[in-house]
Amino acid sequence: MSEQIHKVVIIGAGPAGWTAALYTGRANLEPVIFEGEAPNTPGGQLMITSDVENYPGFPEGVLGPELMEKFKAQAVRFGAQVKSQNITKVDFDASPFRLWSGDEEILAHTVIISTGAKAKLLGTPKEAELMATGGGVSACATCDGAFFKNVEVAVVGGGDTAMEEANFLTRYASKVTIIHRREEFRASKIMLERCQNNPKIEWALNKTIDSYETEKVGVGVLAKDQLKAINLKDSNTGEISTLAAEGCFIAIGHAPTTELFKDILETDETGYLVTQPGKAATAIPGVFASGDVQDHYYRQAITAAGSGCMAAIEAERFLESKGL
Amino acid sequence: MSEQIHKVVIIGAGPAGWTAALYTGRANLEPVIFEGEAPNTPGGQLMITSDVENYPGFPEGVLGPELMEKFKAQAVRFGAQVKSQNITKVDFDASPFRLWSGDEEILAHTVIISTGAKAKLLGTPKEAELMATGGGVSACATCDGAFFKNVEVAVVGGGDTAMEEANFLTRYASKVTIIHRREEFRASKIMLERCQNNPKIEWALNKTIDSYETEKVGVGVLAKDQLKAINLKDSNTGEISTLAAEGCFIAIGHAPTTELFKDILETDETGYLVTQPGKAATAIPGVFASGDVQDHYYRQAITAAGSGCMAAIEAERFLESKGL
Repeated sequence: MSEQIHKVVIIGAGPAGWTAALYTGRANLEPVIFEGEAPNTPGGQLMITSDVENYPGFPEGVLGPELMEKFKAQAVRFGAQVKSQNITKVDFDASPFRLWSGDEEILAHTVIISTGAKAKLLGTPKEAELMATGGGVSACATCDGAFFKNVEVAVVGGGDTAMEEANFLTRYASKVTIIHRREEFRASKIMLERCQNNPKIEWALNKTIDSYETEKVGVGVLAKDQLKAINLKDSNTGEISTLAAEGCFIAIGHAPTTELFKDILETDETGYLVTQPGKAATAIPGVFASGDVQDHYYRQAITAAGSGCMAAIEAERFLESKGL
Repeated sequence: MSEQIHKVVIIGAGPAGWTAALYTGRANLEPVIFEGEAPNTPGGQLMITSDVENYPGFPEGVLGPELMEKFKAQAVRFGAQVKSQNITKVDFDASPFRLWSGDEEILAHTVIISTGAKAKLLGTPKEAELMATGGGVSACATCDGAFFKNVEVAVVGGGDTAMEEANFLTRYASKVTIIHRREEFRASKIMLERCQNNPKIEWALNKTIDSYETEKVGVGVLAKDQLKAINLKDSNTGEISTLAAEGCFIAIGHAPTTELFKDILETDETGYLVTQPGKAATAIPGVFASGDVQDHYYRQAITAAGSGCMAAIEAERFLESKGL
């Protein structure tokens, strides 16, 4: 058992976690950040993204994994200690807080949770690869819609997010087809009607994605598969049809990574951690949440990073107030 | 009178404004951003900052004005139209909203306010120059404290912010002297006591800053003046004494830039614009506030940028909901 009590332990290493590590490191609080290991993704959702055009400060764009390397290097420069381990259990009733990575126990005066969220995917062959290489599959229209000007794309899903993404994508795409496995929608009436009234939106109902058709583009190391069409399977008849599409946006929801905190921290009706409004503080003094694990609305690298900074400043002032 | 109704008009061009322009530009909303002209500062407070070490994504640091150039280039790349004019009057009762730049009238469906805040300064000779060149004067301990490891610094002010900054700076500096023009403090008892109990903090009471003593450091184009000592004037006797200090943190408060919105938008007890908790929306549907004009707590480039993104996403969804 470790005797050392860390001032700040950060769980999860996406934009929020690294920013929290940078700020607490620069405040000489010697943070320890658990970036995790498989099946968790150190670096978060940006690691399965290619071009990032909307993180401010990079006018020519930057690759997702490259941006996360920069975040990490900056946090390490200011003293963050990086552990490539998962946190497997926490006890926030204890003082100091107790955390475990397998059998190893870690003690901490403050904990910043930035475990993020994951887009739910379909598991279709090639899906993960096309997403990671910018080959046409995406889980975020706000992030990637601008890459699909004047081409045909598809959105998969039947909820409000799918309707919102479809509408948003008509700002760029020549045609947007909504693929939904049923004829009934979870989406609200107003969101559904907005799509039904949008002349650029078409519908593929009672359909699921059977497979992706791709084509090689680029040469040498830049060669990659690019989505060209989606083979759809009719939910009733099993019949296969083909939809031309260069983009496919999976909008069947996100799942925040909160298993560790079940019955310990409050979650909202969609499973996200609850913080005080406009703050990173949770209901447990000294425990903070930042980034997508507590945000189902904005979900951007820049908002997550801002939120990690908020958690760091709040943790610093909390420690100061306790004379720690 | 212009007939064109802009979808998004952004007032103010610091990290929040440029990020709002980037996101609304990338959403094809053709934003118009009024970056302002003297006496307002296009680019905001980072323009009077030199090294920025805590904006995530730049492990080697970046100069404040250079970072703002990058933000601007990125927003322009995605279609933001930049106006180097001040907005001088607004009418948010009208629909669409009406804004004026002198005699020129501008119409807008949504307005994002990101006019920022300014640190209050003392007006001592050399103060502004030493701040802009990283010569030892700063208005933000969280931002710049890490540059002052193992040297002696001063903090000017008698409120909670001054006490907080002084305490924070003892993480780096060998000695922190609080300079205050009186013997009484606006600071809360607990914050004051925390400083009084901190062995690294000393006091210069009934003192104001008379002048800065500097010394040339660096060579060639990198040559600059560096603060070495502060000449203090006794408020009662007028006597001058000298305090050795390589850093001087002005902590006499910030003033948000809100004159335009007086009696139009709600402000809190400290004069900052009020938004819905955790959101950028103000009480007027279609008017959003982001960055330091609505944040007196975190005040960082990264939090302002995150907040500008939030305003952009909310504006986009507002327009979508109105079918605009």
